[in-house]
Amino acid sequence: MRICRFNEKCLGLLRGDILYDVSTVLQQLPKVSWPYPLGDSLISNLPALKEHLISAVEHADAVSIADVVINSPVANPSKIIGAPVNYQKHLDEVDSDAELHHGQSVKPIERIGLFLKSVSSLVGVGEGIALRFPERRTDHEVELAVVIGSKADRVSRAEALQFVAGYSIGLDISARGSEERSMRKSIDTYSVLGPCLVTPDEVGDVGQLDLELSINGEQRQASNTRHLIFDVPRLIELASSFYTLYPGDIIMTGTPEGVGPVVPGDLLEARIESVGKMSVRFRAA
Amino acid sequence: MRICRFNEKCLGLLRGDILYDVSTVLQQLPKVSWPYPLGDSLISNLPALKEHLISAVEHADAVSIADVVINSPVANPSKIIGAPVNYQKHLDEVDSDAELHHGQSVKPIERIGLFLKSVSSLVGVGEGIALRFPERRTDHEVELAVVIGSKADRVSRAEALQFVAGYSIGLDISARGSEERSMRKSIDTYSVLGPCLVTPDEVGDVGQLDLELSINGEQRQASNTRHLIFDVPRLIELASSFYTLYPGDIIMTGTPEGVGPVVPGDLLEARIESVGKMSVRFRAA
Repeated sequence: MRICRFNEKCLGLLRGDILYDVSTVLQQLPKVSWPYPLGDSLISNLPALKEHLISAVEHADAVSIADVVINSPVANPSKIIGAPVNYQKHLDEVDSDAELHHGQSVKPIERIGLFLKSVSSLVGVGEGIALRFPERRTDHEVELAVVIGSKADRVSRAEALQFVAGYSIGLDISARGSEERSMRKSIDTYSVLGPCLVTPDEVGDVGQLDLELSINGEQRQASNTRHLIFDVPRLIELASSFYTLYPGDIIMTGTPEGVGPVVPGDLLEARIESVGKMSVRFRAA
Repeated sequence: MRICRFNEKCLGLLRGDILYDVSTVLQQLPKVSWPYPLGDSLISNLPALKEHLISAVEHADAVSIADVVINSPVANPSKIIGAPVNYQKHLDEVDSDAELHHGQSVKPIERIGLFLKSVSSLVGVGEGIALRFPERRTDHEVELAVVIGSKADRVSRAEALQFVAGYSIGLDISARGSEERSMRKSIDTYSVLGPCLVTPDEVGDVGQLDLELSINGEQRQASNTRHLIFDVPRLIELASSFYTLYPGDIIMTGTPEGVGPVVPGDLLEARIESVGKMSVRFRAA
């Protein structure tokens, strides 16, 4: 299944290029009042909703993708986790460019672990990216994003993929500067997820996916997830060794070489094999 | 007002040493379904609830604090923000101790900005702290915590305090190691907030508050918020220049000198003038 959220509160299933409005299924989700449980209610209820989604699509209206705003398929992650420098060639390029490392030696992922991005930075592909600091270099980073499906506390690498609800394309937009990653990468709209959540059965081997990114039609990044230093199971093992993962938590698995600056007006196109493709526009904040 | 959450879903007002159960007021809060709005629903509705709370307490039952579990007064922050090395004497002590800085030069807050702690690490004083990595040094850090009351996007220092719902004691428990702060400080139970949310009218000048912490009865930290390098308005200005703050977002303002290791069994007692006091027990995870 390829699950979309659109127009804030609507749910869609994408089949080929056609988006079916299955928002009626959302009536199955529980209403809650304060305090809310941690995590995303759609994702935690997805196994129970699956049959409803399949039957709803048979009677659903097709909506024109051009006429809706595509939001992040995960609305309420408790955490967005980033994997810094998780492709060797990206580590090499950052190490060799003072505009990227800002005088700080770049440590490998074995040493610096993972970082957090604010959940308030999360948008979908239809919302675009608002560049906040025109005086700073800001870079595109395309990444395979993993969406956690169920609570995961200290899980092993061998069992890690059982805790995955699906995959998306993630953009980890990065203002350069001397601040810690958890600040520079947490600006409003600097985390993009989408266009859909794709369930694992449609993705196949997540360790063998081509990914690429272009700006204004010119290819900037192209690699394959087989070049990840820490692969998806290892990232889940590592993250869950520090903190419990909740349904809807997002792990952005790291970006390959080829990062580069973006400016307002740029059009970013990204594609990950079996996961999908997205077009996102940059504007000034 | 001094507002507590206890037994997960109950609301209390503390007057002197007496806790009044005002949970009936929670019926005023809206029920929501997916997608949930960002931020804490109690905090965003606090201005509207104020009169209800005042009238509810007149008819409320007193509950014995010893018989309940005190949770974090904020249940659903979108972000927990930390201010690293925001007291000069703490910067000095970290710089001079390899066990604290792990071979990395410690940069001042002007340069490294703020960091994020996971919201899944948040607990109240009654839940205790579960130490996860026995082989690592883990330190106590007491801090004045600021709870944001309304959406704040790029607010100036002059207007910053208008966006504050109240203050609490914050503990920023820190496993030492080479990882970024946003990982080492995000372990389950490593963010403590409480015991109450205290509204600004009860706190007075937040720039002149004594704060102290002891372990097993021995004082370890004692300072005053007048020694903050970035004061509360400056922290709000800085944070909101990067990302929008939502109701319930927590800013831990940084810890003074005197941090030190803790082990399972230790009893932590902390106090901030006009804000309150807390006792929290450490256990092994």
